Amino acid sequence: MTVDGLSINTATVREQFDFRQAADACVRHGIAAFAPWREQIAKIGVPEAARIVRDTGLQVTGIIRGGMFPAADKSGRDAAIEENRRAIEEAAALNADCLVLIAGGLPKGSKDIAAARDMVTEGLAALLPQARAAKVPLALEPLHPMYTADRACVATLEEALDICDVLGDGIGVAIDTYHVWWDPKLMSQIAARVGAIGYSRITSATGWCPRATCCWTAA
Amino acid sequence: MTVDGLSINTATVREQFDFRQAADACVRHGIAAFAPWREQIAKIGVPEAARIVRDTGLQVTGIIRGGMFPAADKSGRDAAIEENRRAIEEAAALNADCLVLIAGGLPKGSKDIAAARDMVTEGLAALLPQARAAKVPLALEPLHPMYTADRACVATLEEALDICDVLGDGIGVAIDTYHVWWDPKLMSQIAARVGAIGYSRITSATGWCPRATCCWTAA
Repeated sequence: MTVDGLSINTATVREQFDFRQAADACVRHGIAAFAPWREQIAKIGVPEAARIVRDTGLQVTGIIRGGMFPAADKSGRDAAIEENRRAIEEAAALNADCLVLIAGGLPKGSKDIAAARDMVTEGLAALLPQARAAKVPLALEPLHPMYTADRACVATLEEALDICDVLGDGIGVAIDTYHVWWDPKLMSQIAARVGAIGYSRITSATGWCPRATCCWTAA
Repeated sequence: MTVDGLSINTATVREQFDFRQAADACVRHGIAAFAPWREQIAKIGVPEAARIVRDTGLQVTGIIRGGMFPAADKSGRDAAIEENRRAIEEAAALNADCLVLIAGGLPKGSKDIAAARDMVTEGLAALLPQARAAKVPLALEPLHPMYTADRACVATLEEALDICDVLGDGIGVAIDTYHVWWDPKLMSQIAARVGAIGYSRITSATGWCPRATCCWTAA
């Protein structure tokens, strides 16, 4: 028996499983896809992680996660871009469907949210040539506004899609109902725009949010 | 000395002051306006509150707060509307500039956010004839999405303004930076639409949110 349309975000099982154990558990339960976090890849190294993916035949629906672009100075922003370049390489090595990115919050001490948002667009623009060449789509994930200041200054689906429109091919959105269930334009933006861009994925980490109105619509 | 453009939301001083003490403190500090909460009005009664307003000459920039329309059944929704009718009467008795309303969250057990939003529009529509006749503008306040489920299913300024457009004269928005600072369309919606409707007010309760990018732009 296999479970269609389901990919396990390994954040949901990282207390119990390392990368290999998570992959093995997916196979054991007939789940054909998973989305590992970079921390778990780093623990065993990219070559070993890639070997496990090949051996199990699992689809890697995404590597989680890149992004976090805003920083107080240019060296900080450059460092973020360099870190994302490594993430793209990892995603390519694991033949992942995408690299999931979150925007990042405001630099420490800053209240200039418009400037932070510009840094996100600039960071993504800097990465896109490499991502396109590596055939790793970037998937920008809006996070719930309770995270806007410290984790992701891109909070609505519309805003994420506007950034994708500006940047062109090779970037889309990742939609997690945990983060966007409250968004008044969620359904209309999905209907009008999500199908029209290069890469889109709807996910939810069940159990994180009892209020999510749907879950695990994936792959 | 008077402080222009400042109105004290009595939520910020309710630990120290009752209605009369808050009014007296405003006068003492040269603050010409305040916005009392209904709980504080109820404690001394509407006639006494109206007398204090007349005696002090304070401007009442709003009564806080009405709304909370969604309910699991019709009797619950009717009860909410009746409660709001009393709030309009209080606002009229105190010669308030508006009645501030929040939408209300999802009925207990419900995950149908679209239905809850419809109940908000229906509740406001039911109140508007009375509000117009009493010359009490309704001011719908979007709350931060961390409150969407339990307190206010209207979270963005655009959504609130869309509701105002549907309902016509006698309703506008109340904007609190504490709740909307993260909104990517905040500035563009203010620029494009807030000036065009009948009643608008920008407020913030300083000290509630260290991340608010502006505060106390009021009256």
